[in-house]
Amino acid sequence: MQNGEIKIFAGSSGRLFAERMCNYMGTQLGISQVITFSEGNTYVKAGETVRDKDVYLVQPIGLKPNDEFVEILFWMDAFKRASANSVTAIIPYFSYAKADKKDEPRVSIRARVCAESIELAGADRVVTMDLHSPQVQGFFKKPVDHLFALPLICEYIKSLQLEDIIVVSPDAGFAKQARKYADYLKTSVAIGDKTRKEHNEKAEILEIIGDVAGKNTIIVDDFSLSGGTLVDLARALKDKGAKKIIACLSHNLLSKEGIEKIENSPIEELVATDSVYNPLISTSNKIKTLSVAPLFAEAIMRIHRRESVSPLFNVLPDSVIKEIKE
Amino acid sequence: MQNGEIKIFAGSSGRLFAERMCNYMGTQLGISQVITFSEGNTYVKAGETVRDKDVYLVQPIGLKPNDEFVEILFWMDAFKRASANSVTAIIPYFSYAKADKKDEPRVSIRARVCAESIELAGADRVVTMDLHSPQVQGFFKKPVDHLFALPLICEYIKSLQLEDIIVVSPDAGFAKQARKYADYLKTSVAIGDKTRKEHNEKAEILEIIGDVAGKNTIIVDDFSLSGGTLVDLARALKDKGAKKIIACLSHNLLSKEGIEKIENSPIEELVATDSVYNPLISTSNKIKTLSVAPLFAEAIMRIHRRESVSPLFNVLPDSVIKEIKE
Amino acid sequence: MQNGEIKIFAGSSGRLFAERMCNYMGTQLGISQVITFSEGNTYVKAGETVRDKDVYLVQPIGLKPNDEFVEILFWMDAFKRASANSVTAIIPYFSYAKADKKDEPRVSIRARVCAESIELAGADRVVTMDLHSPQVQGFFKKPVDHLFALPLICEYIKSLQLEDIIVVSPDAGFAKQARKYADYLKTSVAIGDKTRKEHNEKAEILEIIGDVAGKNTIIVDDFSLSGGTLVDLARALKDKGAKKIIACLSHNLLSKEGIEKIENSPIEELVATDSVYNPLISTSNKIKTLSVAPLFAEAIMRIHRRESVSPLFNVLPDSVIKEIKE
Amino acid sequence: MQNGEIKIFAGSSGRLFAERMCNYMGTQLGISQVITFSEGNTYVKAGETVRDKDVYLVQPIGLKPNDEFVEILFWMDAFKRASANSVTAIIPYFSYAKADKKDEPRVSIRARVCAESIELAGADRVVTMDLHSPQVQGFFKKPVDHLFALPLICEYIKSLQLEDIIVVSPDAGFAKQARKYADYLKTSVAIGDKTRKEHNEKAEILEIIGDVAGKNTIIVDDFSLSGGTLVDLARALKDKGAKKIIACLSHNLLSKEGIEKIENSPIEELVATDSVYNPLISTSNKIKTLSVAPLFAEAIMRIHRRESVSPLFNVLPDSVIKEIKE
Amino acid sequence: MQNGEIKIFAGSSGRLFAERMCNYMGTQLGISQVITFSEGNTYVKAGETVRDKDVYLVQPIGLKPNDEFVEILFWMDAFKRASANSVTAIIPYFSYAKADKKDEPRVSIRARVCAESIELAGADRVVTMDLHSPQVQGFFKKPVDHLFALPLICEYIKSLQLEDIIVVSPDAGFAKQARKYADYLKTSVAIGDKTRKEHNEKAEILEIIGDVAGKNTIIVDDFSLSGGTLVDLARALKDKGAKKIIACLSHNLLSKEGIEKIENSPIEELVATDSVYNPLISTSNKIKTLSVAPLFAEAIMRIHRRESVSPLFNVLPDSVIKEIKE
Amino acid sequence: MQNGEIKIFAGSSGRLFAERMCNYMGTQLGISQVITFSEGNTYVKAGETVRDKDVYLVQPIGLKPNDEFVEILFWMDAFKRASANSVTAIIPYFSYAKADKKDEPRVSIRARVCAESIELAGADRVVTMDLHSPQVQGFFKKPVDHLFALPLICEYIKSLQLEDIIVVSPDAGFAKQARKYADYLKTSVAIGDKTRKEHNEKAEILEIIGDVAGKNTIIVDDFSLSGGTLVDLARALKDKGAKKIIACLSHNLLSKEGIEKIENSPIEELVATDSVYNPLISTSNKIKTLSVAPLFAEAIMRIHRRESVSPLFNVLPDSVIKEIKE
Repeated sequence: MQNGEIKIFAGSSGRLFAERMCNYMGTQLGISQVITFSEGNTYVKAGETVRDKDVYLVQPIGLKPNDEFVEILFWMDAFKRASANSVTAIIPYFSYAKADKKDEPRVSIRARVCAESIELAGADRVVTMDLHSPQVQGFFKKPVDHLFALPLICEYIKSLQLEDIIVVSPDAGFAKQARKYADYLKTSVAIGDKTRKEHNEKAEILEIIGDVAGKNTIIVDDFSLSGGTLVDLARALKDKGAKKIIACLSHNLLSKEGIEKIENSPIEELVATDSVYNPLISTSNKIKTLSVAPLFAEAIMRIHRRESVSPLFNVLPDSVIKEIKE
Repeated sequence: MQNGEIKIFAGSSGRLFAERMCNYMGTQLGISQVITFSEGNTYVKAGETVRDKDVYLVQPIGLKPNDEFVEILFWMDAFKRASANSVTAIIPYFSYAKADKKDEPRVSIRARVCAESIELAGADRVVTMDLHSPQVQGFFKKPVDHLFALPLICEYIKSLQLEDIIVVSPDAGFAKQARKYADYLKTSVAIGDKTRKEHNEKAEILEIIGDVAGKNTIIVDDFSLSGGTLVDLARALKDKGAKKIIACLSHNLLSKEGIEKIENSPIEELVATDSVYNPLISTSNKIKTLSVAPLFAEAIMRIHRRESVSPLFNVLPDSVIKEIKE
Repeated sequence: MQNGEIKIFAGSSGRLFAERMCNYMGTQLGISQVITFSEGNTYVKAGETVRDKDVYLVQPIGLKPNDEFVEILFWMDAFKRASANSVTAIIPYFSYAKADKKDEPRVSIRARVCAESIELAGADRVVTMDLHSPQVQGFFKKPVDHLFALPLICEYIKSLQLEDIIVVSPDAGFAKQARKYADYLKTSVAIGDKTRKEHNEKAEILEIIGDVAGKNTIIVDDFSLSGGTLVDLARALKDKGAKKIIACLSHNLLSKEGIEKIENSPIEELVATDSVYNPLISTSNKIKTLSVAPLFAEAIMRIHRRESVSPLFNVLPDSVIKEIKE
Repeated sequence: MQNGEIKIFAGSSGRLFAERMCNYMGTQLGISQVITFSEGNTYVKAGETVRDKDVYLVQPIGLKPNDEFVEILFWMDAFKRASANSVTAIIPYFSYAKADKKDEPRVSIRARVCAESIELAGADRVVTMDLHSPQVQGFFKKPVDHLFALPLICEYIKSLQLEDIIVVSPDAGFAKQARKYADYLKTSVAIGDKTRKEHNEKAEILEIIGDVAGKNTIIVDDFSLSGGTLVDLARALKDKGAKKIIACLSHNLLSKEGIEKIENSPIEELVATDSVYNPLISTSNKIKTLSVAPLFAEAIMRIHRRESVSPLFNVLPDSVIKEIKE
Repeated sequence: MQNGEIKIFAGSSGRLFAERMCNYMGTQLGISQVITFSEGNTYVKAGETVRDKDVYLVQPIGLKPNDEFVEILFWMDAFKRASANSVTAIIPYFSYAKADKKDEPRVSIRARVCAESIELAGADRVVTMDLHSPQVQGFFKKPVDHLFALPLICEYIKSLQLEDIIVVSPDAGFAKQARKYADYLKTSVAIGDKTRKEHNEKAEILEIIGDVAGKNTIIVDDFSLSGGTLVDLARALKDKGAKKIIACLSHNLLSKEGIEKIENSPIEELVATDSVYNPLISTSNKIKTLSVAPLFAEAIMRIHRRESVSPLFNVLPDSVIKEIKE
Repeated sequence: MQNGEIKIFAGSSGRLFAERMCNYMGTQLGISQVITFSEGNTYVKAGETVRDKDVYLVQPIGLKPNDEFVEILFWMDAFKRASANSVTAIIPYFSYAKADKKDEPRVSIRARVCAESIELAGADRVVTMDLHSPQVQGFFKKPVDHLFALPLICEYIKSLQLEDIIVVSPDAGFAKQARKYADYLKTSVAIGDKTRKEHNEKAEILEIIGDVAGKNTIIVDDFSLSGGTLVDLARALKDKGAKKIIACLSHNLLSKEGIEKIENSPIEELVATDSVYNPLISTSNKIKTLSVAPLFAEAIMRIHRRESVSPLFNVLPDSVIKEIKE
């Protein structure tokens, strides 16, 4: 049972995001301390009492996933042993969610390993966004509030007032998700499809299934690191006669090289959220960052007021999309 | 550790399949008894000692999923309490795998519930085939040997020696899987895509993304009940100029109405496996059933000989595809 | 901890019972939806938010025990994943409680399997009535409020103002329980006892241990399906000179044939509760149904007011037995 | 999986019993050490390696139940941490099995607490005898081999060659079990029944349901401490004209006073097993002790040979009942 | 979450301590009943409703550790099954904490076994004092509030106004803890060290590392049973020229012989707490008992008021050390 | 149960150590692959079948503890899901064992968190060496074979044939362990003790408790990072007239700065094991590295042969200390 006393703490990779959340909520961030000792060990300490409080720990598992994941384990344990009433892990990006199946022999289903360990360490609930596949929610036994960047990104796309748009999935694997973007934008989808020609095993050809000629194309994907897939797709779309090309990502992991690649590509704008702490983003003018901190803050306020969180899955309140409209 | 003494038992919905397996393996099916009492309770009893044996219980969760699932729980418990060395649930079709995510508020992730209960009841390993999504494997904590019907089905398609074929996914959700069939058959994919036109909210139009004119089309899907999606797609393909239309299913749940619909459709042949016990199948000449019992039997023999099962994921030994070549 | 906001939902087999409870409590039944899909899968959905609420799910495991049990699992999971504060399974009749021991080799203790699965799926507490044996309460790790129909049934018997009564147990197994009915009614017991004569292995003879001649006999049992045991016993009692014969059941599972058998027997009245949803009951004038919904409602109100439930085990408040006195 | 190397160890209360078992099996008892330190703490140590062996620890939970139960927990942990392949707790008498239900508010189901703790501490299997109720087997999740003293006791009764016998249960609660003794001996049952007369709340009268006049009566019960119930019943039987009175107990807990009471009663002989280490037994000539150590040894040998244990439930091999026939 | 309704109950060994706590808190002790049946079984019952209350059960595991530990298990289960909101085990002395490592092959880590069983039985939190090693806290998964006698004992020592004091550890194992006493008292430490001379394996010599000549020595240890170590050390200190010798114990387990030994030793005063119920203590004038019941009561009040307990680790409020100053 | 087929695999930080082990055992290291993807995720894959094999994974948690710990989790899961018979984690150094208690409010007991997660992920046994405290073994539920560097280090010290030696602990916390080194070397101990003088809170003075003048001093500690404590102590020892100073560490974590500090100190030689992969070690001539890989290899061979491992705790076989004698 929610107690009525919320306390938000930030892990080492979630400070900025947590501050944005607290700003939206008009509350004070809890005092927390994370030390990486010289031998590499991570140490965490909450700087104020959490006894019988409802604690929220904000920490994306992002660009240093092992450190960030292990830190979450220690936070969960620290809060539980300090007699918190409940502990919620706010994980705006959960990197290991990608590792959600056993597609080769003798590998680990790492998303399940991480989910289980986080629960064992003490998490009572998880709030996250755009898991690599929705099934990952089922790797958790505890309640997961699974938020979506889709409405925010689509609202932004709509604010651009482009005509004759089509949503493009980089491959068959993301086609189902692309269909949802297209539903929101009331349009159709095209799909990138890599094949090998029968008599030449090596050359992989990227075809576009669906007609994009003369259209404004909205590439959608859940994350990108090197920018390679996006840029290759953008070039193929241009070859097929596409007009404007805009790429949208839920999670922006772009490396220095990735950003450069985007800069030198036919992609006009790359829209992404701030779910990962990625300090490189500010170096590119092509990148538009939409903050999902208000969305997470809104979710927590609803949890706290014992209201349903699910309305946020489809229609965002004005307070959450205010940023776009300004 | 495997003990060296395998014993295969059949649950009420797996008798035929288990007999086919035993036939392949040259072993005797264990004596088992299942009673449904007049008040509806299910009772199971193993008719011979299993002490320290490696037990395999064959039971699809198919057309009476609740009865069949609950029966599995009781079998697992019965074998464990009877001091079996290990208990493996052979579930050729796992119906509730479809319920693998929380796509609405306040629903259950039923696949996880079933997976957990089966493990709690005593299963040490699960062998199954073509789960609705590969992530469902991660709902289990215990080892899952996840087999695929794809090579068997594709070998059959190849045996038909059709030219100029294309694989068709009924929707974006199955596109990734369709891509794998196309890879095996070295061809490309097309995708069915339902959209609503902007000024008419009601009418849903089925478009085909990709070019199918003049091609022999291979529709692939994991299961069908009413045949509706397959038949609608087949008609749309015909409209777009497709030649022969063959539909392939991993799991054949077709109802009486579904079979009739297929009979009266442009689909020339429906290829499916025997993973579900569906006595109606024999009523249609259009349906070609490929038995995956040899595939499961082969997997168990490899488990027993402490060999890797993974080679069966890609290339099937002749003994397993013998049936097709005859 | 109880939160202060109760919400009662009905599973598919508990709607009528839940409505009777809500009626007693003066509350509104929660909106719930259960679908059995054409392929047989059960789907459940709560139609209103349960976030941080104390949820009670009413569902006897009765005449379709597998479907009803599996549905409970899904409800528990759905409510937990929807962040209910606590979830209580109200199971007026728990059919599998009968399967409470391993009286043969290589069978399952199915009551334990069901109890464990219900807890794993998320139940925080169970409220039930007249379990086949009181030990089944110990198959649950979570608190069980175990109610008794005995006071209600005995109050009804007392309201009949019969003289010189004796309680009769159908066999040695129910003798202990019959003793409790006799204690409440301040009388003695007789017991049905089936034996085989030494030189004739086949013929089983039903003897009556204890003197019933000239007495009004109250047969008590926990459930009946075919009515066979009750009717055989009634005849034997008549043979021994019993006067009136009244039979009492905690749980009324009587089939069509069972009801007919009762109709054509020396049993004058069959008293039972509404713990099982059995639509056939209304077809017989001999059957008197006492509703235990007020008893369950009263228990929940006490749970909610943080009062002891145990007083209800011995003496019922007037509001609960009102029906009898009318 | 059984490993092939059995090693039997004795806890502090099981040494004599374990030696009898080893004697039957022709094996050497393992070296074990139990110290009760002066501050009361129990310390256990195995004196020889158990790495990868199948360990059996023999320890009744008898006359000092808390010490003996706690010692079992430490043994389980010690063997597990010493890398035993499997650990089986041989508990010929499990005193807390009596506490198998919640028959009052705010008490513990102590049998479940003990069962769970023994499993948590490391037991892989339990072998026990004549649990107070068969449902207690279901308090364990791990396999329980539940043996019965009934065939041994009945064989002994048969060896007395008494005519016209009747089995008597001390109360309704043991009636079902008495019925089983009567089945083995092919006779009928009578039951002691205590009631209060309506106008005198205090005086409890012991009636005998069933006709015992002129019969040789075999009183059966699971245990006795003070002998009170047995002696009261014996007197009542004498009053009703019974001839010889023999009492049979599964577990002999008789105290000094209890033995004296038996000595000065109409009971001619008290038959019991050696499941509890009770050094007082030898002080009475009326007491006939039948050793069940051969029965337990036989069970373990069958477990070890991977044979079914269940035949021992009904018919004992000659080697186990040899003692009686001598 | 704490509910707002505290209820303190005493186990059989904690009555006096619990009364002292209630006295400090100004509350009424809950009604509880503990029976040891004649066959040795322990039975516990709470005499008033605990539904949805925050229950604290006070029971040191002291001089009859097995009985007291098992009783705690039953209490935890009884409270949980009676639907308590939370159950806290107050264990002022936890005897088995001494058994915190596997320092020999094939022994049990008994502290872990006990910790786990207590949690399994239902404890939500443990409050204890001066565990043999601080790591034992980590054997519990649930929150442990680990209190220290050090400030209370040191305040008492300070109240004696001795000059030139030195803290003495009986051996290297307690050196770290002695250092903490010295820190509080702002002085240095000496250490007892037993060695064997090289050419005489048998004779063990107790040396004092550090200079104690002319100093008032404060021996500190966590517990003593026979007084042997303390008295040997006191004699060695005298030999080295120590002035006054005062011994301090966290937990006073001294036996009759131990107390006599102290009486006839150079130890002037033995200071200890009342964490163990030891009725012998009052027989000696040399023993000064400081009650830690106010410390525990203060901790619970802070838990209840949702305040931090940790300040009590370093500086005690006046109300807690009042006794000393009087 | 051990299966008879051992397979040793190396994690990313254990390759060199595993090769030394395989060398000693005369076996082939298993094929394994570890990838750190560009986004930071760790991926592991076993390159050969492990079905029903006894797998040993060698991976110290050393200088990159989070990466190395997380990698262990994934390895455990990968081996379990690949149906290994048993999985043993060989962790020569377990860095987080240091975090073994809650010595401040609101921190985590990180050693317990790590231990639990490793077990949850699938480890059946752990083999490690010189845990920071022996209690950490109790944080594991599964068997831990806890090896000691002490005999190897002491044998090396003895091979130096120094006269008149004394063992020195850097502080009170390591005094107990130093006592064990002294026992092996049949000598006495001195202890470093830091205090603050009463009228000057800041200045901390390092005193030496015990007489070291004219003696060859053997400083012992479990690990060092910066070398600070060792060097300060060495200087203080020199000030007190010590002759030769040799420092011994179980785990060598020395940083570049640490090594330099040692180089420029009165320490003549620093003896340590290869339990951590520390490539900097070879840069210093003062450092003598003793390999404990043979010790671990010997332990595994004994596990495999089902022999006791405990003899290795006290006396090392010649094969294991051969290196020293060369």
